[in-house]
Amino acid sequence: MTLATKGFALHRKVRQRFQSKMVDDERDTFLRGARPFIILGQLFGIFPIYGITANEPTRLRLKWFSVRVILNLTVVVTALVQAYYEYGRLKMIGINAKNVSGLIFYLDACLINVLFLNLATKWRTVAAKWGEVDETFNRAPYQMVGCWSLRKRLCVISFSLVFLAAVEHCLSVLSGIHNQYAEVQYCNWTVTNYFRHYSLRRFANVYINYPYHPLSAVFFTYVSFALTMYWNYQDIFIIMLSIALATRFQQINNHLKILSDGVLIPGEDFWIRIRTNYVSVCELLDDVDRVISWTMLISCATNLYYICLQILHVSKKLANTIEDAYYWFSLVFLIVRTVIVFLSAAHIHDCAKKPLEIIMKIPNVGWCVELERFSTQLKSEKVALSGMGFFSLTRQLLFSMAGTIVTYELVMLKFDEESESKGNIPLCTKFTFEKL
Amino acid sequence: MTLATKGFALHRKVRQRFQSKMVDDERDTFLRGARPFIILGQLFGIFPIYGITANEPTRLRLKWFSVRVILNLTVVVTALVQAYYEYGRLKMIGINAKNVSGLIFYLDACLINVLFLNLATKWRTVAAKWGEVDETFNRAPYQMVGCWSLRKRLCVISFSLVFLAAVEHCLSVLSGIHNQYAEVQYCNWTVTNYFRHYSLRRFANVYINYPYHPLSAVFFTYVSFALTMYWNYQDIFIIMLSIALATRFQQINNHLKILSDGVLIPGEDFWIRIRTNYVSVCELLDDVDRVISWTMLISCATNLYYICLQILHVSKKLANTIEDAYYWFSLVFLIVRTVIVFLSAAHIHDCAKKPLEIIMKIPNVGWCVELERFSTQLKSEKVALSGMGFFSLTRQLLFSMAGTIVTYELVMLKFDEESESKGNIPLCTKFTFEKL
Amino acid sequence: MTLATKGFALHRKVRQRFQSKMVDDERDTFLRGARPFIILGQLFGIFPIYGITANEPTRLRLKWFSVRVILNLTVVVTALVQAYYEYGRLKMIGINAKNVSGLIFYLDACLINVLFLNLATKWRTVAAKWGEVDETFNRAPYQMVGCWSLRKRLCVISFSLVFLAAVEHCLSVLSGIHNQYAEVQYCNWTVTNYFRHYSLRRFANVYINYPYHPLSAVFFTYVSFALTMYWNYQDIFIIMLSIALATRFQQINNHLKILSDGVLIPGEDFWIRIRTNYVSVCELLDDVDRVISWTMLISCATNLYYICLQILHVSKKLANTIEDAYYWFSLVFLIVRTVIVFLSAAHIHDCAKKPLEIIMKIPNVGWCVELERFSTQLKSEKVALSGMGFFSLTRQLLFSMAGTIVTYELVMLKFDEESESKGNIPLCTKFTFEKL
Amino acid sequence: MTLATKGFALHRKVRQRFQSKMVDDERDTFLRGARPFIILGQLFGIFPIYGITANEPTRLRLKWFSVRVILNLTVVVTALVQAYYEYGRLKMIGINAKNVSGLIFYLDACLINVLFLNLATKWRTVAAKWGEVDETFNRAPYQMVGCWSLRKRLCVISFSLVFLAAVEHCLSVLSGIHNQYAEVQYCNWTVTNYFRHYSLRRFANVYINYPYHPLSAVFFTYVSFALTMYWNYQDIFIIMLSIALATRFQQINNHLKILSDGVLIPGEDFWIRIRTNYVSVCELLDDVDRVISWTMLISCATNLYYICLQILHVSKKLANTIEDAYYWFSLVFLIVRTVIVFLSAAHIHDCAKKPLEIIMKIPNVGWCVELERFSTQLKSEKVALSGMGFFSLTRQLLFSMAGTIVTYELVMLKFDEESESKGNIPLCTKFTFEKL
Repeated sequence: MTLATKGFALHRKVRQRFQSKMVDDERDTFLRGARPFIILGQLFGIFPIYGITANEPTRLRLKWFSVRVILNLTVVVTALVQAYYEYGRLKMIGINAKNVSGLIFYLDACLINVLFLNLATKWRTVAAKWGEVDETFNRAPYQMVGCWSLRKRLCVISFSLVFLAAVEHCLSVLSGIHNQYAEVQYCNWTVTNYFRHYSLRRFANVYINYPYHPLSAVFFTYVSFALTMYWNYQDIFIIMLSIALATRFQQINNHLKILSDGVLIPGEDFWIRIRTNYVSVCELLDDVDRVISWTMLISCATNLYYICLQILHVSKKLANTIEDAYYWFSLVFLIVRTVIVFLSAAHIHDCAKKPLEIIMKIPNVGWCVELERFSTQLKSEKVALSGMGFFSLTRQLLFSMAGTIVTYELVMLKFDEESESKGNIPLCTKFTFEKL
Repeated sequence: MTLATKGFALHRKVRQRFQSKMVDDERDTFLRGARPFIILGQLFGIFPIYGITANEPTRLRLKWFSVRVILNLTVVVTALVQAYYEYGRLKMIGINAKNVSGLIFYLDACLINVLFLNLATKWRTVAAKWGEVDETFNRAPYQMVGCWSLRKRLCVISFSLVFLAAVEHCLSVLSGIHNQYAEVQYCNWTVTNYFRHYSLRRFANVYINYPYHPLSAVFFTYVSFALTMYWNYQDIFIIMLSIALATRFQQINNHLKILSDGVLIPGEDFWIRIRTNYVSVCELLDDVDRVISWTMLISCATNLYYICLQILHVSKKLANTIEDAYYWFSLVFLIVRTVIVFLSAAHIHDCAKKPLEIIMKIPNVGWCVELERFSTQLKSEKVALSGMGFFSLTRQLLFSMAGTIVTYELVMLKFDEESESKGNIPLCTKFTFEKL
Repeated sequence: MTLATKGFALHRKVRQRFQSKMVDDERDTFLRGARPFIILGQLFGIFPIYGITANEPTRLRLKWFSVRVILNLTVVVTALVQAYYEYGRLKMIGINAKNVSGLIFYLDACLINVLFLNLATKWRTVAAKWGEVDETFNRAPYQMVGCWSLRKRLCVISFSLVFLAAVEHCLSVLSGIHNQYAEVQYCNWTVTNYFRHYSLRRFANVYINYPYHPLSAVFFTYVSFALTMYWNYQDIFIIMLSIALATRFQQINNHLKILSDGVLIPGEDFWIRIRTNYVSVCELLDDVDRVISWTMLISCATNLYYICLQILHVSKKLANTIEDAYYWFSLVFLIVRTVIVFLSAAHIHDCAKKPLEIIMKIPNVGWCVELERFSTQLKSEKVALSGMGFFSLTRQLLFSMAGTIVTYELVMLKFDEESESKGNIPLCTKFTFEKL
Repeated sequence: MTLATKGFALHRKVRQRFQSKMVDDERDTFLRGARPFIILGQLFGIFPIYGITANEPTRLRLKWFSVRVILNLTVVVTALVQAYYEYGRLKMIGINAKNVSGLIFYLDACLINVLFLNLATKWRTVAAKWGEVDETFNRAPYQMVGCWSLRKRLCVISFSLVFLAAVEHCLSVLSGIHNQYAEVQYCNWTVTNYFRHYSLRRFANVYINYPYHPLSAVFFTYVSFALTMYWNYQDIFIIMLSIALATRFQQINNHLKILSDGVLIPGEDFWIRIRTNYVSVCELLDDVDRVISWTMLISCATNLYYICLQILHVSKKLANTIEDAYYWFSLVFLIVRTVIVFLSAAHIHDCAKKPLEIIMKIPNVGWCVELERFSTQLKSEKVALSGMGFFSLTRQLLFSMAGTIVTYELVMLKFDEESESKGNIPLCTKFTFEKL
């Protein structure tokens, strides 16, 4: 147990004597805020941790032989199988910069899933630490007043983004159906069972090798929806973590703002407490950063790749309004989501640096060794989420990422034009099992 | 009220007893220096704040139902309408990297206008803060002697740039007329009313849908001039802010230079006063940065885009001397203006770091806790304008921007050659309403 | 002798009285850990230092007239001769971005060899310093318990990588043989002596000018294997250095973690000892950095170049499975090795910064001048290997390198397509001495 | 007069009592070391400052009506005239990325010359300051023993580089003559006066408009040599400045190395003296940086441009051995010179940071406020030459410049291929006045 957490423990005991037990459901913790989102994810087999509904972080654990994990592994295996058949298809029709994206999508989703499975094994320790920090910040002097509670913030942002992701997936399905319909008319096919036709075309990779069955089609539709969700899940999860962490720093800032208005000059004890709490949030951030780092890296890489890819399509002649709507909605949603990921992660850094401004204004009479240490610490440390230490998530990073995307895009727009002729499937020919 | 401003308040009271009221017009404040420029802008409907002629910052406010705001909104709506028709035209003739610039111009101007409207709602707070800071720096020991007053500096720089912008717009109009004249001769048209012909051709986007009327033509000419001004307005506004802020830091430096020549070793009180004033300018800078950040970002992006675009045209065969003169004047003016924006913003940073050099030379006997805090603060903080925290405006930024422009240009020069064939309007054909 | 090493000397004397002489073979030093690897290298003529089997660093020296050095120079001269003939061949068939790689391979191997020869002249001083540091860290309170010893770590990593390098070379030979076999069948040649045929084709550059002799063929095969090893040798050597240095910093961190759990608050003496030891490792790092800097630079440049080159081949149609296996194994191994070099070098930096986290938690009662100095030192210094001061090896560097490779690759993929037609040797024609 | 220089003044007076006047010629100052080089430059009309042979910096000044200035202006005007005609020629034959280099060469040389003329007006102040610093560092405890004196260093490096520059120019002339000779033979011309023919062809731009005269041809040859020298002059001047400044920092380091070997623990007075001297060199560096900044910027830009340009020619088929030798000598010399400029400038930074290593080892008993200030100053300040504040000349810069050049080169190699057809002069046709 570290020094900081020891401080907590003592603090807690003293308080508990004078204060009746807090009603459990009132506690405004990250774990509670994230609970509905995590449960939603488990319906699609991601992050299959057990004990999420309990209020005790110590009861979180990964049960290997549970429905959640089996669901999880089923989806992963299905995705891998689809990736394998997609690879086969690509080998047949030739690979170009654009059609390889399907393969990458499957592999990426598997990777994300495995990373969350791995996270589930380490989640208990982090959750316990988080619980402790949350407890401190749910009590005086840090309570939040006059603004949304952390739980509300987390729910609103996560379900808004989930809703938009669902809309995007529906548009994608609609656009696919519309194209199929156009093709059916163009080729003068007679389709009796529309769902069968849709499934055969959509999951052609699989049905070219296996016989069709309505149940398997439903299952593939579910998996396809799940895989799309994973990618969004990852980003939303990072956003939620970032908001929760930034909120804790903000609470310290709010507390400092009230006290250090120049009238009251706090003593060294005050600053010891503040610094202890600040350090405990920093430690939590470090722990979170360690368990989330691979996910962070994959999230950034995935988003960067798909933004580049989608912009590459900008010059493509779009067939109809639905495809058009889907393309623009998808591109804008992708960019907005990426920017939110970056900005909310960067917000941690901004909030963690804020106390400096207040310390700057403390007059000399209130200056003490503890304050000097706090100020030096604030100046020199990089308090931010990082992608495995390769980069720190600050606003500057977003700026240079934007510059990089523009450069890549300018170069790739050229390259793309030439590889366009390869790898296109002519209409009414291959993969048309209806005709066989 | 922060600690720093409290210090001001006390200071002010004491002084006012011993000193007769300063003649109001003598005060060398930013608000007065910027007044003529802001009034000029309001003639073109930008930054429609009310109470600009009063000497009291508290009387500044945005009246929604005033002539200024109505003029402002009229121009914005007209620009949006023109953007809509320009989009229609582009769809018809095909888009390439160059002819899209007209559409971007309209949208950019609207965006700038909306940002200034938004700024107007927040301006009073900033102006009040600024007034306080200006008051401090208009008194001993900070008065400026032997150099231009701030007001003079602001007026000279702003009106020089406005003049150059006007010259550029005139050259643009002249070049347009000359081209039309050449076309008229080439196509053997007979033009009776030259202004009508000019307007029909220049605002073809609109007159293709609506009947011509001389008054509307005058109105469109005014709007076209206003929109060109907006872009310049934004840059000049940033330059003025930067100069005013840098001047305050310079005044601190000048004061330090006089006192710390090694003979006189100032006590801790002196450094407390200096640091308090320094912090108050920093706070002002932070406030300004917050309200101006979007404008800053848009200004940088716009300038970067147009520089890239203009350099792309460098290989174009120019038809005649007037077009040639316009092209080069426009390019050089654009680059010079951008460089001035960057350098004047970077100058804030340079000036704010300057006290370090003097502190370095203070001998040990004069060293005190306050001085240590001041020195640490100077070393660690980034005192500079920023584009929403994405980048700090320092000289290094200008350097890397230049490198980026060169890279983009090298890549785009290639790309451009190939898209050149698309989107050109042949002579004597479309949009020639005279002939109908 | 510096202050720090003086401290060691005194420390050592006192200890030696109370402690029986450590059994020599138990000492867990870098020199012992690296010994098997260095001996292996000397079989291929690289790093021909004398006295490597002795336990005394002072007995290390470069004997110019020894078998090792003569072997070393023989290989270098042979490589230079091959480079000369390769240059001749390139002049004949035309140079393109890809076939120039053979020439660069020879020159690079020579350069690496010369750098290690140069390192051998300076190695004694570094080894002596290293011996002193290792002695300190082999004693209480720094002993490593419950984890692999440094020697084991070094042996495992070095021989794993050597094994993989050998596998890669074998695959390369196999792929070459397979291609020759295919050619023999395609051209309907009758080959009697397969080794002769293989050698004639493989070392065509030489045998076009000199008559064939079986012994010379064996010698060239040996040299060819040695040259491939050099490149790997260089990387593995850097990895071993990095691991050894990082381990020392880790030992300091482990020691700090145990003591500073908040119960025991160590006095100033404790921190003086820690800082002295920390500084001595930093000094060692500086010395190592100085002697290794050119090697570091060449290693980075070589790896960067070959990664770019190999990725360029990605679009090439590969003839058969063996060639395919070789290409992918080679590319993946190259990338993995490069990443290990970077990450292990960056790990030094990470470990050297770690004490900050513990210092952050020391309560105020244990704060002292020495601790303040230690903390300031940790914050401000860049403790890392560097490529001649041009760059520091941190994780950020790896990130920007990756970005650079992607940019180069995107640009070069275009350039490469066009130069592809030049410099290819048609089958069954030139350099086919069997037919003459 | 600053605090630091005041310290010098006092110091000097005391010393002069006890010490007989130093023999003037023994003084190892920068001004004396640079004198032969500056005089050489004045033969070609650059940096026409008066009083360079005197030993008193106060006698340096720019006499506007002197032979030096007139020579200077004559060369500049001639260069401008040639630039004008070169522009005319380019307009006639078409501009491409390569043949524009002649025009840039003339303009660049003029700019360099004007910058040095400007420098001459400010040189006295800098020289005086430099004289003071040099005096301090020529006395105990800073004398240099056991290594080359500053004067010797400056002379050896400057004249080596001048010699190489002369060799390069001769090779250029030789290569030109050889090409003309080849052309004469190819076209079957009969040339009677070879110097006349050479001049007519070489200065074709001028002689196409004016009649030939042998004296004018000699004059143009001289000017052409002078212009080539200017470019080298600029680089060598910066190298000399850098060496001189770095040497002073090195002297401080040497002094520190001797004293702080751990036996002797110097008192606060010692550190006050060291810091005062350190600050005085920093001030000198600042002054030099201010007057040299434009030259620095132009030097970097010029070298960067010409390296890019020369590498672009790498794929060109070279006609013969002399042209080949010239091309490679010129490219290697250019790169070597540029690297020397960067490394010697970066060396200032390295030397100025060195004292940190020694301070790190000072034991706690010798720690004092002055030492703390010195250490903080060393850590936080960027002591380096800069290109107008846009970049600091450190080793990292050289690294990123190299990366930039590679990127530009990769992109431009593509662009260049296509513009190659434009702007070439066929043999035996234009500008052949002999035939008229």
